[in-house]
Parts: sequence; C-alpha cells; structure tokens
Amino acid sequence: MKNNFEEYYDLMLKNIRNGAFLTVADEERLNTMTIGWASIGHLWGKPIFTVMVRKSRFSYQLIERSNEFTVSLPAEGQLKKELIYCGRNSGRDVNKFEECGLTPVEGRVIKTPVIGEAMLHFECSVVYKQEMDKINLDPVYKDRWYSDDDYHTIYYGEILSVYLNR
Amino acid sequence: MKNNFEEYYDLMLKNIRNGAFLTVADEERLNTMTIGWASIGHLWGKPIFTVMVRKSRFSYQLIERSNEFTVSLPAEGQLKKELIYCGRNSGRDVNKFEECGLTPVEGRVIKTPVIGEAMLHFECSVVYKQEMDKINLDPVYKDRWYSDDDYHTIYYGEILSVYLNR
Repeated sequence: MKNNFEEYYDLMLKNIRNGAFLTVADEERLNTMTIGWASIGHLWGKPIFTVMVRKSRFSYQLIERSNEFTVSLPAEGQLKKELIYCGRNSGRDVNKFEECGLTPVEGRVIKTPVIGEAMLHFECSVVYKQEMDKINLDPVYKDRWYSDDDYHTIYYGEILSVYLNR
Repeated sequence: MKNNFEEYYDLMLKNIRNGAFLTVADEERLNTMTIGWASIGHLWGKPIFTVMVRKSRFSYQLIERSNEFTVSLPAEGQLKKELIYCGRNSGRDVNKFEECGLTPVEGRVIKTPVIGEAMLHFECSVVYKQEMDKINLDPVYKDRWYSDDDYHTIYYGEILSVYLNR
C-alpha cells in the first residue's frame, strides 16, 4: 500500500532537534511535552515513528494507558517559547495548553489530539514498547543521560496519518 | 557539532524497502545480509541508525562480537539479483561476496567494510541494543513476523560516517 507519509519524514528529522510536541491523552487527562529526539523508518513492514519517554514523566502515565501518541512539529522559528515552557514544566502541575495558548485539535485517526498551532502532524498507534535495559547501553551514553537511573521507555508507533496544518 | 549526515537520511528511508546491504564482520568472519527495514533519527543527542537482526542469523553472531555495522544502499534498480541472493542465503553456507561478485571496501571510520558496488554508505557503532520482548508487541505484528519465536535484537548504531560511493 502506497502512502505519502515518506514525503514528510525529512521535514521532521531535519527539525526534530529544535523541538516538537509529543502529545498524549487518556480518558480524562491530556498533556504535551517537548521532545528533541525521534527516529522514523520502516520496521515490521510498516511506517514507524519512535519516541522515548522517561518513567518519571507525567506523559508516561498517559501513554501507558492510551497506547497512542501524536507528534506536532512547529514551522521554522515558531512556538519557541511554547516549546521551552512545555519542556520545563510538568503536566502534573500546570495545564500547558492553557498556559501556552495551545489548541488541542482532534486527531484524524486516533483519539489523541494534535497541536493546532503547529505545522506538521504525525498520528501514531503504539505497536511495540520496551523499557531500556542499562546493561546494553554504551557507558558514555549512560553517564551523559541516565546518572539518575531515570531510564526511557522506547515507544514504536505505527504511523497512521501524517499531514500539514489545516 | 554540525554534520551533513541528514542530507542522506531521506535517500535511505525512501529506498530501504527495496533492500540494502547490512554488513558485519568480526576478527575472522565477514558477512552481508539484505535488509528492508531500518529507522533513522536523532536519539541521545546523536544521529542514530536502527537495524534489527534475528538471533538465528549468522550475522547475529558477528555483530554481537564486533558491535558495529555498515548499511550500503544500491543505486535505484541496481544490484537487484545480489539483494535477492543475500537475502535468501546464509553466510554460514556460502561466501556471498564471492558468489555475488561484491567487493568489501574498507570502512572510513570503523573496521567493518561497506559494499563497493553500492551507492550510499552508513558506518555505525552500536551504542545500545536490546532483544525484543514479545510481551509488549502488538499481537498482529507477533503473528505476522514471529510465529516461530525467532525474535529480533534491535541495534541502535551511532552514525559515524555517511558518504556516496567513491
């Protein structure tokens, strides 16, 4: 089956380091957090978007319940303050959507919303996940990112929909 | 640190489904196998290439020893017969380089060679790896790919060098 998802991989991968919004929601709660890491590809015969969430995060509780997520990339130079705010604050303490004036817009395929003010959206359903095991991690990476033992869970999401802002 | 690796992600991701050569080598042995799955991105602050190898594969033994790999993508429409042969045969039984007339060319940064006849090369050092755990895999994916319980190990390679054929 041919889709046009691949056209947008490049845009996401070239800009992910500047920050994107990872949005998660369960039945009652909604949150978004800033991510600067992601991987995209073709695994298990499907388009797959990989994200990482530390167990300490509020978003971790939500994605564990919903098994889905969206990633919304701002246009170049846009939403910089919002990305900083959503990276520094926890959804446990604040409603980031209200604080930043971000609009949750209903997903086209999944229940989790996307960020209305952003440019490019990926909607993904988690098909595999795994908690990191420090045994097989390069010691330099371990010291750099996990000195507090707060390891990531890696979520592999089947990409179900990709689109530019509407 | 700025590199130009990202310029080539798109080329790899748009063509990986048609097949690329995953090459691995330890002190004494060399092998290449055909892959149609890969993921590329920015994880742990680094450019990362993700590949999957089943434990039953001859290449599994080699990458487990060497902790590095290269991925070589043929130019469009090239090396089709060689990709088929290297996907169907095991390096335990045959020397794929001799059988296919493929030339192992010394890596620029790592010890593992690339495929001289291919177009685009990624040289990667494994910084994290993890055996898949079937518990957290979507049942549809499990039935489709793992009915024989031969699970993949997922290798995350830091991309150290990317270049077009020379």
